[in-house]
Amino acid sequence: MATETQVMIPAPFRAVAVIGAGACDDEVAADAREVGRLLALEGLALVCGGLGGVMEAACEGAYQAGGLTIGILPGANPLDANAYVRVPIATGLGEARNALVVRTADVVIAIGGEYGTLSEIGFARKLGKLVVGIGTWELDHPTFAGPHVLLAGSAEEAVRAVAAVVKTSRG
Amino acid sequence: MATETQVMIPAPFRAVAVIGAGACDDEVAADAREVGRLLALEGLALVCGGLGGVMEAACEGAYQAGGLTIGILPGANPLDANAYVRVPIATGLGEARNALVVRTADVVIAIGGEYGTLSEIGFARKLGKLVVGIGTWELDHPTFAGPHVLLAGSAEEAVRAVAAVVKTSRG
Amino acid sequence: MATETQVMIPAPFRAVAVIGAGACDDEVAADAREVGRLLALEGLALVCGGLGGVMEAACEGAYQAGGLTIGILPGANPLDANAYVRVPIATGLGEARNALVVRTADVVIAIGGEYGTLSEIGFARKLGKLVVGIGTWELDHPTFAGPHVLLAGSAEEAVRAVAAVVKTSRG
Amino acid sequence: MATETQVMIPAPFRAVAVIGAGACDDEVAADAREVGRLLALEGLALVCGGLGGVMEAACEGAYQAGGLTIGILPGANPLDANAYVRVPIATGLGEARNALVVRTADVVIAIGGEYGTLSEIGFARKLGKLVVGIGTWELDHPTFAGPHVLLAGSAEEAVRAVAAVVKTSRG
Repeated sequence: MATETQVMIPAPFRAVAVIGAGACDDEVAADAREVGRLLALEGLALVCGGLGGVMEAACEGAYQAGGLTIGILPGANPLDANAYVRVPIATGLGEARNALVVRTADVVIAIGGEYGTLSEIGFARKLGKLVVGIGTWELDHPTFAGPHVLLAGSAEEAVRAVAAVVKTSRG
Repeated sequence: MATETQVMIPAPFRAVAVIGAGACDDEVAADAREVGRLLALEGLALVCGGLGGVMEAACEGAYQAGGLTIGILPGANPLDANAYVRVPIATGLGEARNALVVRTADVVIAIGGEYGTLSEIGFARKLGKLVVGIGTWELDHPTFAGPHVLLAGSAEEAVRAVAAVVKTSRG
Repeated sequence: MATETQVMIPAPFRAVAVIGAGACDDEVAADAREVGRLLALEGLALVCGGLGGVMEAACEGAYQAGGLTIGILPGANPLDANAYVRVPIATGLGEARNALVVRTADVVIAIGGEYGTLSEIGFARKLGKLVVGIGTWELDHPTFAGPHVLLAGSAEEAVRAVAAVVKTSRG
Repeated sequence: MATETQVMIPAPFRAVAVIGAGACDDEVAADAREVGRLLALEGLALVCGGLGGVMEAACEGAYQAGGLTIGILPGANPLDANAYVRVPIATGLGEARNALVVRTADVVIAIGGEYGTLSEIGFARKLGKLVVGIGTWELDHPTFAGPHVLLAGSAEEAVRAVAAVVKTSRG
């Protein structure tokens, strides 16, 4: 009945969360788009918060390369998702949905980002998941040693790092 | 890197929640399997709680017909999903995830079911979404009139009813 | 710094959820107020969804009898709570907060109620908690036998039933 | 029926979240205990995650000074709360409950802390709430300027800072 699109879904399922702010400048968006594109080429699903900025740019890159894009939305309306989200999950949980973005993913890439991104980095590391960062939070703690976030200098370097981990995760 | 499967995803996204108990007898499972199969043939995504019983049977029917199956899990581990879930969402929210199953769907089909299903019927109706039921809860209230659940006599009748609604929903 | 009120808190903590619609007629409100009052006299905390209608009336009854009233709100603003909530919990989870109302309580009293109440009855019974009802949902299921809700004819009868259970719960 | 304790509850309700790790050394616990005690003396409710370490020490300090202590638990069992929680809220949401701890509070004090604390700092700042820190995360970002966390050198200094803010918040 509805129109349909043919999409490749990893089996077994493997997903990378791309986290970042809901608004961003062109340079950050370009990084996010390239990260999305490369993840799709690796055959990995992209999961994000489903809104604008870094989330939208990453989805756009993955979408145009034929990848699966999942948006875990704060609101109750699936139509709030950006245009490149193929599978919108309407949680209605507000910012608490950040925990679900991270749980659904095997690893996380943080690009730029503000306080919501900081909460997701915290959740991811709490769960023991690798966070690779591009131009994001630099974390230091007087008594709790890292490494907290693995810094990458480019989209390509970030995707290479997460792909290496995903290949070996989940037994 | 991972193996991939080609799957049809409705665009714009349209999903039907199939709700029911985590364990069920063969007759209920056969209904659930047939509902899943028919939803896939209609080009509709199936969303459910991702576990066994009615959820697994419905996913199996949809999966084997090439449909998209989404499992919104109570636990934090995507591997808890049944084998026919293509996209597992690990919420870690426990039973509160029932609200997300219903929010993500346009309409709901309840098959058999116990108390978790009852909570989902409540959420769906609260959101004004149609619930079609097969052998499920019969609801009556001394002062709050229905119709609460639309009863269907078969999988085919249930899917016909929801497809008619989905075709006209979301503008 | 702020003004303070002296309140009795049960130790060990014991709470009864009072659930019902956010708007109700005078007769239902009178029942809710009396239930709240009697719970406070029993030394039991009252937990509810924190908004109007049955929730507000029950809180009013408990508040005026010096009882502890807890409102688990769907929104992110503690100020949304009705005037008789002493402890507002701002969840921001929307209707998914219904699961928390029920989890926090030892037993549940449903008064009138609509679909949100139905979801809470489902959650409570899923967790094996007693639900006592006054003028609320009548539940029937073709293959899943009850008793689902224990009917009470008055506020006094409802509170007597839950108090008997709470006295023996949690070891 | 149950034993009861007389507790002062701020009216209107004012709460401070104390966040930190579920295990901590004696020095950090001493700071947390003192923060709890001073908050109670200020007539402010204390809200936390309800478990051990910093959460338990802060609750102990507040409890012994007659303050209201609220534990927003990750699990579904109110009995998981530490012994100094007067009002346990059983969410069953896992780590996603961190969002609720922060939402329920007017301001936040972070003491030590690990990744869960980091997620709460992110949530709090996202909501525009002040975070005062003692020996906690030092945050830096290449393009997103702070101040992110206000550092305090002692429990007394931290409570003085939050009390000043709470006095003027919520109009």
